[in-house]
This record gives sequence, C-alpha cells and structure tokens, in this order.
Amino acid sequence: MTDKNIVLLVGGVGGAKLAFGLNKLVSPENLTIIVNTADDFWLYGLRICPDVDTIMYTLSGLVDKQNGWGISDDTAITLNALERIGEAPWFRLGDRDLATHMLRTQLWYEGYSLTAITKRLTSALDIKCNILPMTNTPVETHVDTVERGELPFQMYFVKHRWQPTARNIRFDNIEQANVSDESRAAIENADAIIVGPSNPWLSIQPILSVPGMRELLTAQQVPRIAVTPLIGGEAVKGPTAKIMRELGYTTTVQTIAEFYSGVINRFAYDKRDAPLQIENLRLLALDTLMQSEERRIELADQLLHWLED
Amino acid sequence: MTDKNIVLLVGGVGGAKLAFGLNKLVSPENLTIIVNTADDFWLYGLRICPDVDTIMYTLSGLVDKQNGWGISDDTAITLNALERIGEAPWFRLGDRDLATHMLRTQLWYEGYSLTAITKRLTSALDIKCNILPMTNTPVETHVDTVERGELPFQMYFVKHRWQPTARNIRFDNIEQANVSDESRAAIENADAIIVGPSNPWLSIQPILSVPGMRELLTAQQVPRIAVTPLIGGEAVKGPTAKIMRELGYTTTVQTIAEFYSGVINRFAYDKRDAPLQIENLRLLALDTLMQSEERRIELADQLLHWLED
Repeated sequence: MTDKNIVLLVGGVGGAKLAFGLNKLVSPENLTIIVNTADDFWLYGLRICPDVDTIMYTLSGLVDKQNGWGISDDTAITLNALERIGEAPWFRLGDRDLATHMLRTQLWYEGYSLTAITKRLTSALDIKCNILPMTNTPVETHVDTVERGELPFQMYFVKHRWQPTARNIRFDNIEQANVSDESRAAIENADAIIVGPSNPWLSIQPILSVPGMRELLTAQQVPRIAVTPLIGGEAVKGPTAKIMRELGYTTTVQTIAEFYSGVINRFAYDKRDAPLQIENLRLLALDTLMQSEERRIELADQLLHWLED
Repeated sequence: MTDKNIVLLVGGVGGAKLAFGLNKLVSPENLTIIVNTADDFWLYGLRICPDVDTIMYTLSGLVDKQNGWGISDDTAITLNALERIGEAPWFRLGDRDLATHMLRTQLWYEGYSLTAITKRLTSALDIKCNILPMTNTPVETHVDTVERGELPFQMYFVKHRWQPTARNIRFDNIEQANVSDESRAAIENADAIIVGPSNPWLSIQPILSVPGMRELLTAQQVPRIAVTPLIGGEAVKGPTAKIMRELGYTTTVQTIAEFYSGVINRFAYDKRDAPLQIENLRLLALDTLMQSEERRIELADQLLHWLED
C-alpha cells in the first residue's frame, strides 16, 4: 500500500482496469478517480452515467467481467417487457443495473449534485475510494459522422457500435461546466496524477476540457503520467485507433503522447511498440495489456514504483 | 353486444371491475373509458399513472387479480436491488410493470400527449377499446391530513396506507387542465355516461373538476348513471367511507347520490341498502358487489339493460 495521494482520470471499460489495479494497492482515502461524464445521457427518463457506473461496478466487484460493463448475471426482465410493448431497446439495462439509474435519477430531481449522488451510490456499493464525476454540470458529447451526421454519443457508440466515420467531436455545454470543489481538492493534494488508458478523444478530452481543469492539473508539480490506450498501433478494445485514423492522426503512441502534450510530464507506453523518445517527457515501456486481474494490479504496481523514481 | 356508445368515468381498482364487465359486452369501438390522472406522479424519474395502468392491466388480462393492480406474477428484481442500495421502496413497481412507466416517460419527453402515449400503450397491450386520461395536463391530488399535514396523493394513499385523517383534498393545477379533443368527441357521441363505483372524492371529483367537463357531461341528453361505491355504508375496498366520515359526510348511498347531483340523472345502488327515493333521479337497486369476473359482466349487463328502459 502506498500512502501517496493518487488521482486517476478515466473513462469507462479501459480505464476501469487500471482503476481496479490501483484500488488494490492504494489506500482508499488516498485514491481519487475522476470520471468522464460527457457520455451521460437520459433514457426512458432515467439519468445514466455509463462511465461512472462501469468504474463503480468494477471496483465493487459487481461488474460483468465478460463485457467489462453492467452487472454480472443481471437479468433483463424489464427490457424484454419493453420489447414486447414495441420499444426495441438498443442500450442494455439490466434489472439490477436499473436500480442504480433509478436511485440516481430520484436524487437528481431531489436536487443533489452528481458528486453527492455518486458518493451515495459508491457508499451503498461499499466502495471506499473516492469516485468523482468530472463535473456536476451535464455535458454531452456529440460525434459528427460522415454517414449519419451528428449523433449523440450513445447513439454513435452503442446504437451504431462506433461504425460511422467520425469527422468531429463536440462536448455540448462544456463551457458551463466547472471543476467541482471535491475534484479541485483531490488534484491539489495529489502526489501523482495518472491519465488512464482510456480513449483520449472521447473519454479524457472531455475531462481536460472542463474549464479550469487543464490549468489545475498542470499547476501540480508532481508526476503526471498518461498510460497509452494503444498497443502496436491498435486499441485493445473500442474505437481509439479507428477514430484517430478518421480524424487524420497516425495511430502511434507518439501521437497519443503529443495529444497529451502540456498536460503530462511522463508517458507509459507498451513495450511491444518501438522504443520512444520525446523531448521533455519521461518515458517508460511496460506491458500495458491488462487481460487478467493480476495484470491490472501488476501494471498499477509498476506505475506506483515509477513514482518513487 | 350493444352498439350504444358508452363512456365510463373511473379511477383505479374499483372502477376497473366495471370496466372489465363493460369491455366484455360493448364493442370496443363503442366503449370509451375516461380515467382519473390526478393520482399520477413522478418516482425515480418515471411518470407513473396508477389508475390508467390499473385499467390497462385489467382489460389486457395482465393484472394481478389478487391485488387488482400491477402485473400478475411480476418480479421485483429492480426494487430489491434498490433496497440493497439503501432506498426502501414504498411504491411497488414490478419489473414488467417498469417497462410501461419507462416507455411512457420516454414518449413523454419526446413530446407526446398522455392521450397519445396511452393509445400507444393500449395498442401494444392489444386493448381495443378507447382508454383516455381525463386530461393531458398534469394534475396532482394533495390530501391535507390532521396527523401529517399535506401529503401528495401517493404518499397518503400508498406510503401511509390512507391511514392519516383527511381534512381537505386539493387538485393542484386543475385550473390549467382541459378536456381533450378525444374526450370531448367521446362524450358528445355518448349514448350513455356511466360513473364507475370509484371513490367519488379521490377518483371522480378530479375528472369532474377538469374545466369544462361537468358542463360537457350535463349537456348530454342521455342516461348519466353513477354506480355506488358504498355497500351497506362501507366501501368494498379503499378509503371511500373513511374519507366521507373524515370530511363530515354521512356514509350513505344517499350522500353519494347527492354528491353527484346535477351531473347524473340515474343512480344505481346496492340492493343490500335500504330502498332509496331521490327527487329527479331514476334509481335502481342492484347487486353491485363484483367479486368475480362473472359478477362484473352481470352488473355491466344489468346497467346496459337499464339503458333500454
């Protein structure tokens, strides 16, 4: 167990793996996970926060390990009933999972902030570390696509399985967002900031775009490490490489490091990739593939050791 | 099968029994059921219309016959999960039932009227007759109680099981409501209007309080029959008699008939009660207890026969 204060910035499934590893090695009071909420949306009147849920379900052990999201062995009685009354569901919501969205929505209308709601949910799930939404303000990612025009994020990502060609990404309402007091305090107290191996354009960029966030992060004279989401030029899962190509980037770890330029001072990439050298950036080649729980803990451990260095 | 156009005004469980009977005897295109929606409320972000649902579930055959509401053999996986995360549910929402509320809420936010939403739901449930909400405007019953002050209807009725002493009943926003085009057309084409054996103060009064409704009903020169909800001075189920006492009424069928004075021109009461005579009101004593499906059809049949007279 390290007693360093660690702040991890993440999106959903990819970042959750590193969150899982860090959660095993960092005392809960020292670990803060700031989660993308630009994927959040309303469905059937319910407020759904897919990335926050994925992190919560992963850390609580409830997660469906096959998918990396949702609750293990969840049933779909409500969704099947919806289908029977003519509404073909395109977003999977298990019956146990629904309770999370319903309680969140109830508290939302009672006037609680998303930070307070998330605190209540994590407590109920017996999660001891600090999971914070990137902001309390609703922000909405829209992906402008060649084939289907502009799509709200979940329509792009889930309904159309990220198959349309992206040509632009926009975070609606981001200018109204701000860094919450809880996030600010965690970042100011951080001994290290780690950007998880999440999609830089879809998951991390919204966090960095919260007004004041980039400046707050770079003001911290501590290791600020990004972990590559690419291995050998491809994403482990999800659309990172595809989106990079579509937006005109080369799908290399170098591009990832450059994308985070100014924000990070260290970069961990995969040892399968060619050795990297970038000015003003400390670099470390690691096995970043986390296909088992042991590997997640091992990678977290290697990153924590690097902090001593 | 009668080919008369029948309009039935009802609340939930009690009225649903007569709706069931009429639905067996009246051609679907000739039967319109106008349902109280002042009990509707928001819970967990979902729009719930308990009386409309009870009528829909009863006519579709889905209803839990023991309770008279909800769906038969429904599960409670989501509600149990809500309980595990610390939210003790006080309003029963089964997993299949939830689909109704979720689709309704989705359509609500898409801008459909409650009339259109109800049409879509009844079609999905293969209900052929016409179920109409009393108005498309949200109206909220509040019950002012001696012990707990003012309570939103479902808090009074479900959470506190109608045990607090009522001293006043208010229909918030009723002055903004109006008679929908669909309701108006049905009433104007009616060959008979039947007020079901629902709670006059909680279920029927909201319908009659929709601006324009009372005048529209009384303008129809047709039989306008109310069926008593009291038998021998007591309600078959629910708080009708209790509320009457609390509001200072004597719990007699005479009081019920007087409550509807001006709206109805006929009154069907139970033959267990003492013979009644009221000026300007045609009266009929019947067996109004509907404890079996056969009895529901039989009572509906007797009312329809009375129309010939």
